[in-house]
Amino acid sequence: MKLAKSLQDIQPSYIREILSAASAPGIISLAGGLPDEGTFPLALMTESLTALSNKAQLFQYGNTAGYTPLLEHFRGRYQLPSSHDSIVCTGSQQGLDLIARAFINPCDSIVMEAPSYLGALQVFGLAQAKIESISQNEHGPNLVELEACFCANGITLFYAVPDFHNPTGVCWSLAVRKKVAQLCQRYNVTLIEDVPYRELRFTGDSLPLVSSFCPDNSLVLRSFSKIATPGIRLGLVTGRADWIAALNKVKQAADLHSSLPMQAVLLDLLQHDKFPQHLTKLGQLYKARYEALSKNIALKLPSNCYANTVDGGMFIWLSLPECDVDAIAKSALEHGIAVVPSSVFYQDRESITPALRLNFTNSNIEELGEAIERLSKVIKTHSMA
Amino acid sequence: MKLAKSLQDIQPSYIREILSAASAPGIISLAGGLPDEGTFPLALMTESLTALSNKAQLFQYGNTAGYTPLLEHFRGRYQLPSSHDSIVCTGSQQGLDLIARAFINPCDSIVMEAPSYLGALQVFGLAQAKIESISQNEHGPNLVELEACFCANGITLFYAVPDFHNPTGVCWSLAVRKKVAQLCQRYNVTLIEDVPYRELRFTGDSLPLVSSFCPDNSLVLRSFSKIATPGIRLGLVTGRADWIAALNKVKQAADLHSSLPMQAVLLDLLQHDKFPQHLTKLGQLYKARYEALSKNIALKLPSNCYANTVDGGMFIWLSLPECDVDAIAKSALEHGIAVVPSSVFYQDRESITPALRLNFTNSNIEELGEAIERLSKVIKTHSMA
Repeated sequence: MKLAKSLQDIQPSYIREILSAASAPGIISLAGGLPDEGTFPLALMTESLTALSNKAQLFQYGNTAGYTPLLEHFRGRYQLPSSHDSIVCTGSQQGLDLIARAFINPCDSIVMEAPSYLGALQVFGLAQAKIESISQNEHGPNLVELEACFCANGITLFYAVPDFHNPTGVCWSLAVRKKVAQLCQRYNVTLIEDVPYRELRFTGDSLPLVSSFCPDNSLVLRSFSKIATPGIRLGLVTGRADWIAALNKVKQAADLHSSLPMQAVLLDLLQHDKFPQHLTKLGQLYKARYEALSKNIALKLPSNCYANTVDGGMFIWLSLPECDVDAIAKSALEHGIAVVPSSVFYQDRESITPALRLNFTNSNIEELGEAIERLSKVIKTHSMA
Repeated sequence: MKLAKSLQDIQPSYIREILSAASAPGIISLAGGLPDEGTFPLALMTESLTALSNKAQLFQYGNTAGYTPLLEHFRGRYQLPSSHDSIVCTGSQQGLDLIARAFINPCDSIVMEAPSYLGALQVFGLAQAKIESISQNEHGPNLVELEACFCANGITLFYAVPDFHNPTGVCWSLAVRKKVAQLCQRYNVTLIEDVPYRELRFTGDSLPLVSSFCPDNSLVLRSFSKIATPGIRLGLVTGRADWIAALNKVKQAADLHSSLPMQAVLLDLLQHDKFPQHLTKLGQLYKARYEALSKNIALKLPSNCYANTVDGGMFIWLSLPECDVDAIAKSALEHGIAVVPSSVFYQDRESITPALRLNFTNSNIEELGEAIERLSKVIKTHSMA
């Protein structure tokens, strides 16, 4: 059989591919977007996991939208208005895929920031969307470019990660959030607000969701991979009931529903009285690692390699002087450190700025120090110092 | 936002919709395709479920193709040749969806038997395939129609459920299996062999997979919903490594991977020394229920309503004299029995033969008797007797 046309141009995820290389002995990996296994709140989940085998109904077929008590919990937790609904997905990755399948026709134009989340590039690629890229600064998307795009291109959808962006770590300012919401309303564009890292803030106060300023022009994608665990594959989409109903139709064909036992365990976890404490500890740990990584970069790398500051999330974006980032990443792997070159996060190779995405959540402070030590040798070899 | 064109003609699953009506108090449901909760092998899963909370690595991100030890188990269990591979899916429903997304372009022609599995109709509808329907007899698909279709229409794909077909319960004869395999090879058509009910045989000996006669012209879809439990949402696709690699690319975008803790629990279950005994007991229970249902039909329904005999699976197909099957199903629900009218299983309304799909796995013998009692009243009301 021949591949479908929609698949012919899709590359396998570089990151999913690099993760196997990165797991070789001796490699320190700052490549993945993995939370630290040691932080998984398994102690808070033990009782639920053990109780599962007495709950046969959780092993039966369930509703496509999700486990009813969990959906009720989300209604309260995220203060959904009565005109809004939610649907549990097999990871927020599935949520994004359902949105693309429900609302995008081939050749439809959508907007993303560049660089952008690779999994979103894959989803929109499969949907054969035309991706318009706009640049990003430290406060969020370039609003002039965004409005120009909204004006010119018959855009129906803007995909964004406003809290601790993947790959750059940027968190949109309040002013930018309000302005983007206004633009979405003015041009009748739907914001797909992807917030997997929102609860991983370790500095400053949480900012309102962009969608809180344009609730009927948005769909919010949440992930439980970072605050609970990734292996259970659970995410959530919330938004207008008619849009959620459309996602429901696609999900019936896509996988009927997501794992029910895992949904029940997630509900217990979210309601556990020690869950807030788990989030606090997670933030403290990641903050310490982020600070160690930043310090090592400042100390050990030449001054033309600099990282942005972040207030949360899992990544920093290490800007490099003009260079071949793919060669740097390859050479880094040979020196025992896995990183992701900026090139994979761009739809359009011409707009690539040289940088590396570094993850700070899945290595301890000693490893982060050693990783930057190794990276500094790579950078010297490439005579960028 | 407007719905994507591919979704505009897709109806929500009648069966998923009816399941909520069917769960009202007092209703006996023969409508769903649900296994009996009481048979779930939870006792064999308790130890695995309890052990999960000590296995943090099972809660981390995993490989897209599945949990490695489970994939190794499948290689042995299903005796995969070295040129073949497998991918774990979020239910076999997802496997089918991945196949459609990887290999079907809009307007491509595919073949299915009519009546056919509703979930497959939905998937191929979303893929905007042109569905060619062929009729079915008690030995399997009409081979003359099948070959005529393969000859005429540039068909690349034939979707079939050879073991205890949903909705008719038909099990293909050995001769038909061999002939279909030959035709697939001759016309270079890929067989999508969906075998969710294969291990629910309660009479006679298992027949070889159709794909065993054309291994490089087939993909096999397996479900663990019927032999383990549906709620865990796990299925499997096996076939040529290059085709499985294509499914892997789609699955990266679709949900990254399926629930890892559930995959580990499934592996333990499949390897449990009491698992074969569980399958035997399941077969005995379903056989007794099937026989009770058949007996009740013969005793209580008029002779122009007759059910086929089946050797396994979950359904019988109750043929009715000319009538409005939708009206019968509606009236049945008012009389406290949920059934599925044949109309929902046809792509093309003109070829509908009047029948009801009756499930015998999720009601006990007493309920099955009472269900047919109620159905007989409905049939009398519609003066078909």
